[in-house]
Amino acid sequence: MKEKGELVESMFVRVDHRALTYFVVEVLQKFGVPKDDAVITSQNLVKADLRGIESHGVARLKRYTDGLKNGPVKAHPNMKIIRESPVTALLDGNFGLGQVVSHKAMNLAIEKAEKNSVGLVGVRNSNHFGIAGFYGLMALERDLIGLVMTNARPLVAPTFSRQKRIGTNPICVAVPTSGKGFVFDMATSVVPSGKLEVAKRLHEKVPLNWGIDPKGDVTDDPDNIFKGALLPLGGLGEILGGHKGYGLAVVVEIFSSILTGANWGITVGETQGPAPANVGHFFGAIDPEAFMPLPEFKSRMEQLIRSLKSAEKLAGTEEIYVAGEKSAYTEEVREKIGVALDHETIKMLRSLSSETGVPFPLSK
Amino acid sequence: MKEKGELVESMFVRVDHRALTYFVVEVLQKFGVPKDDAVITSQNLVKADLRGIESHGVARLKRYTDGLKNGPVKAHPNMKIIRESPVTALLDGNFGLGQVVSHKAMNLAIEKAEKNSVGLVGVRNSNHFGIAGFYGLMALERDLIGLVMTNARPLVAPTFSRQKRIGTNPICVAVPTSGKGFVFDMATSVVPSGKLEVAKRLHEKVPLNWGIDPKGDVTDDPDNIFKGALLPLGGLGEILGGHKGYGLAVVVEIFSSILTGANWGITVGETQGPAPANVGHFFGAIDPEAFMPLPEFKSRMEQLIRSLKSAEKLAGTEEIYVAGEKSAYTEEVREKIGVALDHETIKMLRSLSSETGVPFPLSK
Repeated sequence: MKEKGELVESMFVRVDHRALTYFVVEVLQKFGVPKDDAVITSQNLVKADLRGIESHGVARLKRYTDGLKNGPVKAHPNMKIIRESPVTALLDGNFGLGQVVSHKAMNLAIEKAEKNSVGLVGVRNSNHFGIAGFYGLMALERDLIGLVMTNARPLVAPTFSRQKRIGTNPICVAVPTSGKGFVFDMATSVVPSGKLEVAKRLHEKVPLNWGIDPKGDVTDDPDNIFKGALLPLGGLGEILGGHKGYGLAVVVEIFSSILTGANWGITVGETQGPAPANVGHFFGAIDPEAFMPLPEFKSRMEQLIRSLKSAEKLAGTEEIYVAGEKSAYTEEVREKIGVALDHETIKMLRSLSSETGVPFPLSK
Repeated sequence: MKEKGELVESMFVRVDHRALTYFVVEVLQKFGVPKDDAVITSQNLVKADLRGIESHGVARLKRYTDGLKNGPVKAHPNMKIIRESPVTALLDGNFGLGQVVSHKAMNLAIEKAEKNSVGLVGVRNSNHFGIAGFYGLMALERDLIGLVMTNARPLVAPTFSRQKRIGTNPICVAVPTSGKGFVFDMATSVVPSGKLEVAKRLHEKVPLNWGIDPKGDVTDDPDNIFKGALLPLGGLGEILGGHKGYGLAVVVEIFSSILTGANWGITVGETQGPAPANVGHFFGAIDPEAFMPLPEFKSRMEQLIRSLKSAEKLAGTEEIYVAGEKSAYTEEVREKIGVALDHETIKMLRSLSSETGVPFPLSK
């Protein structure tokens, strides 16, 4: 069994996802996280590695453990619902792990949608929550449409600016199908910052138009982009729609932070501290049955997907995908052959293993 | 008083927006549309011209009158609510004018949001509804967040395809501020089809990467793009995020048509017939007060907007904008100096004037 795509095997080590999940659960517990919460967080990180989003996987574990160690992330948050109606809620995460707070918030949205067709839950005082798709998939399990947004520390320049003022602010929309679901999960920047981090770890250049240097010129050097800014989806200026990606990022910011009381834009902190990040999120669940019977809805989804996938292909193209399809395939393969961790990540995990005494899983 | 931007004055004729609104109301009535409905439709079209979105303004009037004349658009639709809950509804537009059906649907969403914090209304059996922003602005008038989506006839190629399979499917998100509001209104393609139509009317080339010819190669010829396909936001392939624009278009399709029972993707018809277009829309209204007091929300919006606008500018840039700001400025100016209609549009309006006997307003 092999992966499709561009993975250069020698650059990665395969690790069994169950052993890795167990390792992360144990490590988080050593930092004071209760077992159930450690399981949620670990599943979220390993899910990213399973689905091919290595940028948001266990490679980020040390940021979370640093956050727990330095104090801005609380292992025992006292989460509180601040405002509530039958279809809305505002949750104060009390600086818990983003995954733990978000899991609770999405479950609250799901509960409301199951009772009243719709549930919209805003979150303040949270932290980086991993991949948005994780919470979208929670809605899918209940045959609901899931909506997920979060803000993030500032990395993206507004259109016509050369300065970081807004996050890569992702959106996920997950829709039930008769298969594994339509799972759309995107950063509103050209690429998520994690892709730059991967390029940096591997000492690679990146395509032009992903970002600009501090002077505002496009560059292929990930380091210069971190010093300058990422570009919004649509790129530099307005000719190819950069103002649309920028506008989408602001929409996500409004729902995640302006509406929830979380920090916004330039005021969002880092997970590892020193001050609490106070990241904001927004979760939605919608019951398709408020509009039509579920089987009819799913059958219509299949028709749409078939129509898209059967379009005439560009020369040299093997397949036309719909959102979430590649990730689901990668997940299926990696559940069998293991996730792919790069050497820097392995080094970091081994060092966490030494620090905590939790044995690191053997590679596959 | 002059407009900012790229308008070449000699290519356009200035017309007073009140006189133009009156003209369109009278013309629509000659095609059997009741006065109140004609007013809604006319205001929607002229609003597009006022806000600088000529592609969706009165230039499209003949499509609507042709639709009314040929039968696929009904002047006296028998609209019906098919399903309803305190926070959701599904409206059958019975093939009425898209503006009339959508005005009713957005009002229904607003009513629900005012009572129960949230209102989500899906629409089937409708027609092209003009600019999405029009309905977003309706929510703003009530200090609600507005959400608007619609599908459209297929013009955009899925990523890695060279064939039109999905519409330019716009999204609008309108958010109350202490000023004129944040009004984000975008096609999920690089550009809306209207921009190609304008280029075609003016015999101009367009920037590369807006679209592809029937072979799948990028082209600057609007005619070749109409024969080929528009590209999704993010452009060709995945390098600059074309799969994100494509995914967004599918999200809009799902909410507007799959969930509502409207025609979807390749099955959406033309306004002017021969068969009913059966366009689908989705409207949402959310009360910010479900999450925090309105004055606090608006003050936070102002802080965010100030932070974005005060970012360091790219060389040669005068101003950084937020969504809706340019349109609001253009509207203010054009309310005084008149809207800008190109000569082909004037010709079409004069011919409708002859056909109906409604005198065409003198230019300013």
